[in-house]
Amino acid sequence: MSNETPDKGLTLKSILFNENGKFCLPCTLYKSFQYISGSTMDPSISSTPTRDDVIIKQSPALPSVPRSDLIPGSRTYVKEDPPDVNKLGSASWTFLHAMAAKYPEKPTPLQQEEMTDFLNIFSHVYPCFWCAKDFEKYITENAPKVKSQEELSTWMCQAHNKVNKKLGKAQFNCDFWKPRWKEGWDEQE
Amino acid sequence: MSNETPDKGLTLKSILFNENGKFCLPCTLYKSFQYISGSTMDPSISSTPTRDDVIIKQSPALPSVPRSDLIPGSRTYVKEDPPDVNKLGSASWTFLHAMAAKYPEKPTPLQQEEMTDFLNIFSHVYPCFWCAKDFEKYITENAPKVKSQEELSTWMCQAHNKVNKKLGKAQFNCDFWKPRWKEGWDEQE
Repeated sequence: MSNETPDKGLTLKSILFNENGKFCLPCTLYKSFQYISGSTMDPSISSTPTRDDVIIKQSPALPSVPRSDLIPGSRTYVKEDPPDVNKLGSASWTFLHAMAAKYPEKPTPLQQEEMTDFLNIFSHVYPCFWCAKDFEKYITENAPKVKSQEELSTWMCQAHNKVNKKLGKAQFNCDFWKPRWKEGWDEQE
Repeated sequence: MSNETPDKGLTLKSILFNENGKFCLPCTLYKSFQYISGSTMDPSISSTPTRDDVIIKQSPALPSVPRSDLIPGSRTYVKEDPPDVNKLGSASWTFLHAMAAKYPEKPTPLQQEEMTDFLNIFSHVYPCFWCAKDFEKYITENAPKVKSQEELSTWMCQAHNKVNKKLGKAQFNCDFWKPRWKEGWDEQE
């Protein structure tokens, strides 16, 4: 096992590394850490669990505050660790879907250009390296549809479903993007 | 009270409206809804609570799933409502800080240009209209510092503290950006 090449790409199954071989914290689940390190966050970990060792298909309910002690000098902020791949993914999709749902119904050419630029840059700066690569590939093959709020919200839903499929998660029915991300469900009932 | 002009700007104290007078869901707390509407998400609400009626200084612990019933045709997805201003804010800061913490230590001129563009566009497309306006103003007065990971992460921390101050929340000591958003706290102990 120690001679295996570390898994690359986002599978939620193992510790992940960046292209340069460095450990990638925002690409990894806390549970994977815990499995091989006994709850340490030590980024010097070099061994890799096998696929069968750490299979986590659904996002675990992580405690939002792993430690109870406060940051030195603060009476408010606890020593919360950086987000793992699940927490970062969930947070980022929340932002992206809400952004699409507030995009203008009739965007100007400048707004369309800005949104296209934004999504392209997003695929360069997203902190989980492998997720960013996947998103960049998706954008290359499926150019962002930015002509209307409906179009962008549906495109975003489909992009998310592509990731859901890769991770073995259920597909979200994109017909429901509006109550989920814009209007709430009362209107539907 | 019914004759009062709705509050504008982000105060977390009341229902907020966009510049065009339309109700702004991503600018509002669920608790504000509940207060005046009896748990309805109906966006046709027209009355406005006074400042004293709905004062919520800290983010309430909102249930992530307000309803237990499933989306039609799905065995997985529940009818979760769109994020309110707190959930959206928390999610977006998680993404932004993590992004800054993974920004290169020595970014190329192109990476610097892209990050500057990204933050400028972010201030146009952020779904809470008033938050976006505040962020745009902050960027105008405090140009994003993009010459290194350290510089950008500190700038982001200071931008967040500006919002914390406005909302009456504690200031985060930006000396601790690295354990909070990049390395975890074990390294510090």
